Amino acid sequence: MENRPLILITNDDGVDAPGIRALTESIRDLGNILVFAPDGPRSGMSSAITSAVPVKARLLKQEEGLTIYSCSGTPVDCIKLAMNEFVPRKPDLILSGINHGTNVAICVHYSGTLGAAIEGCIFGVPSVGISLTDHSLEADFRETTRVSRIVVEHILNEGLPSGTYLNLNVPDIPEVKGIRVAQQAEGKWVKEYMKSTNAQGDPVYWLTGQFECSCPGHPLNDTHALDEGYASLVPCKIDVTDYNYIDKLNQHFS
Amino acid sequence: MENRPLILITNDDGVDAPGIRALTESIRDLGNILVFAPDGPRSGMSSAITSAVPVKARLLKQEEGLTIYSCSGTPVDCIKLAMNEFVPRKPDLILSGINHGTNVAICVHYSGTLGAAIEGCIFGVPSVGISLTDHSLEADFRETTRVSRIVVEHILNEGLPSGTYLNLNVPDIPEVKGIRVAQQAEGKWVKEYMKSTNAQGDPVYWLTGQFECSCPGHPLNDTHALDEGYASLVPCKIDVTDYNYIDKLNQHFS
Repeated sequence: MENRPLILITNDDGVDAPGIRALTESIRDLGNILVFAPDGPRSGMSSAITSAVPVKARLLKQEEGLTIYSCSGTPVDCIKLAMNEFVPRKPDLILSGINHGTNVAICVHYSGTLGAAIEGCIFGVPSVGISLTDHSLEADFRETTRVSRIVVEHILNEGLPSGTYLNLNVPDIPEVKGIRVAQQAEGKWVKEYMKSTNAQGDPVYWLTGQFECSCPGHPLNDTHALDEGYASLVPCKIDVTDYNYIDKLNQHFS
Repeated sequence: MENRPLILITNDDGVDAPGIRALTESIRDLGNILVFAPDGPRSGMSSAITSAVPVKARLLKQEEGLTIYSCSGTPVDCIKLAMNEFVPRKPDLILSGINHGTNVAICVHYSGTLGAAIEGCIFGVPSVGISLTDHSLEADFRETTRVSRIVVEHILNEGLPSGTYLNLNVPDIPEVKGIRVAQQAEGKWVKEYMKSTNAQGDPVYWLTGQFECSCPGHPLNDTHALDEGYASLVPCKIDVTDYNYIDKLNQHFS
């Protein structure tokens, strides 16, 4: 068992969510697995970190090839704490998911699932965020685990460049047409709040909204890949510098 | 007053923090200002959003050219709620800061200050995150407000490309050598936890750590600019796609 790959898994729906369980079970034969995931839902936590209070971890299961911890922190806290204090060695792969819900286009910025993948990448470990477009607890993860396994086996063999992580989204259909390498769609959310009133009579605002793609139907967009029945696979970078605009700014500031 | 620029300001240290007050006062003559900021500290909140509970806003001040609201949400919630429900028209500029503490290199991923700038950019408004390297409440913001004003006046005149926002960091010195257009430094945090014990005798972990730059002294890094006594100005992109790696992935998956 010593030479098997070590795979660290987290998510943002919590350690008990069906998505992370399905993913874990589907790749147990590929390596030794350490699940280190939040003790409850942390959706929309992005790359948030916890510093005002300490974080805690609790061992839930330890058996041959599988160890499971829950953690009081965010998805990024989970990766940080696991990597600093709980991994027996540097993992060969970090997976985050399977998220209950889509994480394409600008949603990569809000997603706790992707936050954990970014963090894994910062640690220099090949990292993949995995999401299914169905956000219900009863979602059917069978096709997503099949597709994920293809990507996992590829990354275990080939690795990823330093500073690059992957964002995999799988549509909620029985059989995808394939995996389409895509780019992050442009767009924004609109009509984002439902105004309501609390028990004291004060106005309160519930987050909701619709995503409006700027280029619907663009053949390379991740959103379009899903619409067409493909799983979308977007390579993403830790370095967010806009190198094309540096020269223009330099004309003014240097 | 109708033709003056409209400037929306938020932060992640809370509406009462000295940094946001100093920024607001220093540019009041440049336009009508709407401050819409968290009701308390939200450091390290990244682009986190609040959906499990509703968010609320409270009017704190309304006078000629300046309106101030506090909001129960994260920095991104502040931008979303202000833009959806509270702005009289689309702002000409969104500022986030002045943050009490540095936001360079990979810290852009954890920063609530930058989360708000990203969100402003998603709304199509030129947006700038502003940080001072001194994280104390008693920090001296005079040089930072002077430098910020130079950037603000430039952006009000020239705008920014769609999908690009700015990350401005100012070193804690009486006079910077200038503004250096820079790129996000590579590196990672190490020794990130101080292990301790809570009152029940359970182990708890406090986030701490040191940043290790992969390329210290690289002349184009934002970290190096600060070390040299310059303010660093990094143009950043909403689109995190690694376009250089798409072809390589396509060789395997298409």
